[in-house]
Amino acid sequence: MQIEVTRGGRVESRHAIAFAVSDATGALRLSAGDVAAPVFPRSAVKVIQALPLVESGAADRFGLDDEALALACASHNGEAAHAAVAARTLARLGLEATALECGAHWPSLPEAARGLACEAAAPSALHNNCSGKHAGFLCLACGLGVDPRGYIQPEHAVQRAVKQALEAVTGVTLPEGSHGIDGCSIPTYALPLAALAQGFARLGTGEGLSAGHAAAAARLRAAVAAHPFMVGGSGRFDTTVMAALGARAFTKVGAEGVFCAILPEQGLGIALKCADGATRAAEVAMAALLQRLLPDLPAEVAALAAPVMHNWNGLEVGRMRAVF
Amino acid sequence: MQIEVTRGGRVESRHAIAFAVSDATGALRLSAGDVAAPVFPRSAVKVIQALPLVESGAADRFGLDDEALALACASHNGEAAHAAVAARTLARLGLEATALECGAHWPSLPEAARGLACEAAAPSALHNNCSGKHAGFLCLACGLGVDPRGYIQPEHAVQRAVKQALEAVTGVTLPEGSHGIDGCSIPTYALPLAALAQGFARLGTGEGLSAGHAAAAARLRAAVAAHPFMVGGSGRFDTTVMAALGARAFTKVGAEGVFCAILPEQGLGIALKCADGATRAAEVAMAALLQRLLPDLPAEVAALAAPVMHNWNGLEVGRMRAVF
Repeated sequence: MQIEVTRGGRVESRHAIAFAVSDATGALRLSAGDVAAPVFPRSAVKVIQALPLVESGAADRFGLDDEALALACASHNGEAAHAAVAARTLARLGLEATALECGAHWPSLPEAARGLACEAAAPSALHNNCSGKHAGFLCLACGLGVDPRGYIQPEHAVQRAVKQALEAVTGVTLPEGSHGIDGCSIPTYALPLAALAQGFARLGTGEGLSAGHAAAAARLRAAVAAHPFMVGGSGRFDTTVMAALGARAFTKVGAEGVFCAILPEQGLGIALKCADGATRAAEVAMAALLQRLLPDLPAEVAALAAPVMHNWNGLEVGRMRAVF
Repeated sequence: MQIEVTRGGRVESRHAIAFAVSDATGALRLSAGDVAAPVFPRSAVKVIQALPLVESGAADRFGLDDEALALACASHNGEAAHAAVAARTLARLGLEATALECGAHWPSLPEAARGLACEAAAPSALHNNCSGKHAGFLCLACGLGVDPRGYIQPEHAVQRAVKQALEAVTGVTLPEGSHGIDGCSIPTYALPLAALAQGFARLGTGEGLSAGHAAAAARLRAAVAAHPFMVGGSGRFDTTVMAALGARAFTKVGAEGVFCAILPEQGLGIALKCADGATRAAEVAMAALLQRLLPDLPAEVAALAAPVMHNWNGLEVGRMRAVF
């Protein structure tokens, strides 16, 4: 698939997309490009990384609610509500924001960053787009009864559990030491798009998963469907899609142009990667696949498959479109 | 040329670059990809768009200094110093910021946007990255003795003069109505990379230009070399390169992965386009070409050809590199 960016009736820029649409058995329904080559799924697999938090019983033991579970699956904007839910999880663990090992950055939503700047000299780790996931990691460490410090290291019990969940869901054995380091400092393991798509189909149907993983996946999907704002925030693709579709679809962006999705009613999973790493193209590609695979797509989701670009005076200057 | 983005020793993303390096006669010294296909040069040709401002005598008549001329060639960060120089030009014309027709946006440098947000409810057109160019357009209109209103329209005397300068410098006839609309609302005309590279070589040597255009180009190059902060700002590629190289190189970024450059001592011009529109890749490509073409490249410029990426904890997570 290609995503074309047009201006003045001319294609100005062009993105190449590889994608896999699979059922839970690994049968490919649709695909394009090299779906066997490993790609770093980055934050697109946060829902898998959150499985041990739920399956281990840690989330229940510390009373994490659905907002906290949705935030554990999130790459959020760092808006006040996101930081508050992350802080609430930490409070339940008796921990401070300094326990988070993801690093601090200004909210990724410019409006939120500008608002915070007028109140505080610097952001905290609560504003890091991964703070909910990291609060979940801390909860898992507390539930496992291990020292949470160093929970971002590959050899820590938390990351070992995360790696085992990734392997179980995707069916891929991840060699030790084969990882890169993600933006939030945890290991990221490269996986073929075909295996990711199959894994996401399993998250929707439970087929091929342990009972514990299947139940945890269903609970995380329900939490995100109930609180789509938590998984992204104002103006974000995943939030818009899930606010419109509810439990009919779970989508999740990852850095460098990765996207994964679950279509539970169809029993399908989707994984895609924009070769050049552009999120704008990955979003159009995901919306175009939703348009192809889901009946009765709401207009606000269909619009994401053909965005119109305006300039600072509000004039239409270009469009984006998917070419299969 | 390809720009590879690596993580964990693996290529995570990949960008395709087409480029032309030409002398003033149009002889290609180096090239890759399709250099005959027209591309929108966007803001990379601001120095050409500023030629009529100088050549017409308008800049002198209204007392524009070198900072104002450098800002006329700029895509700036919207820092306080940039907005101040744009305001100074308008004051010399007896105009207010409302005369600018580029639209308003928050400063593109996040720190500057956060600082401004604590002082003002909204940005003005002075903070638009193109405000210096637009202040120059207003100066040209005043110098031509025409009503400045509507100066962004293709049929206005200002844009007609800009189009003529583009045609004269590049040797390409631009059909009426063949333009797209740029982010700042002026027309942008698609041109082959080979013609752009030849045009930029001419801007460095004067060869093939009218005496008026040659003199105007030399003056604009000197203004930018004297005030490299004005052409971009804190942390910006063009500012870093020209602060280090002075008059030895003129580089200018454009939106959607375009870059143009002048190497006056070599008598060469460079034009490149990243197919997917990514600025990060266009910057690495331009730095790699400077490294190949310029002797004794300062370390701070060479570093731009092989950037190291760090995450929020300051850990090295990846690199970028150019593969010819």
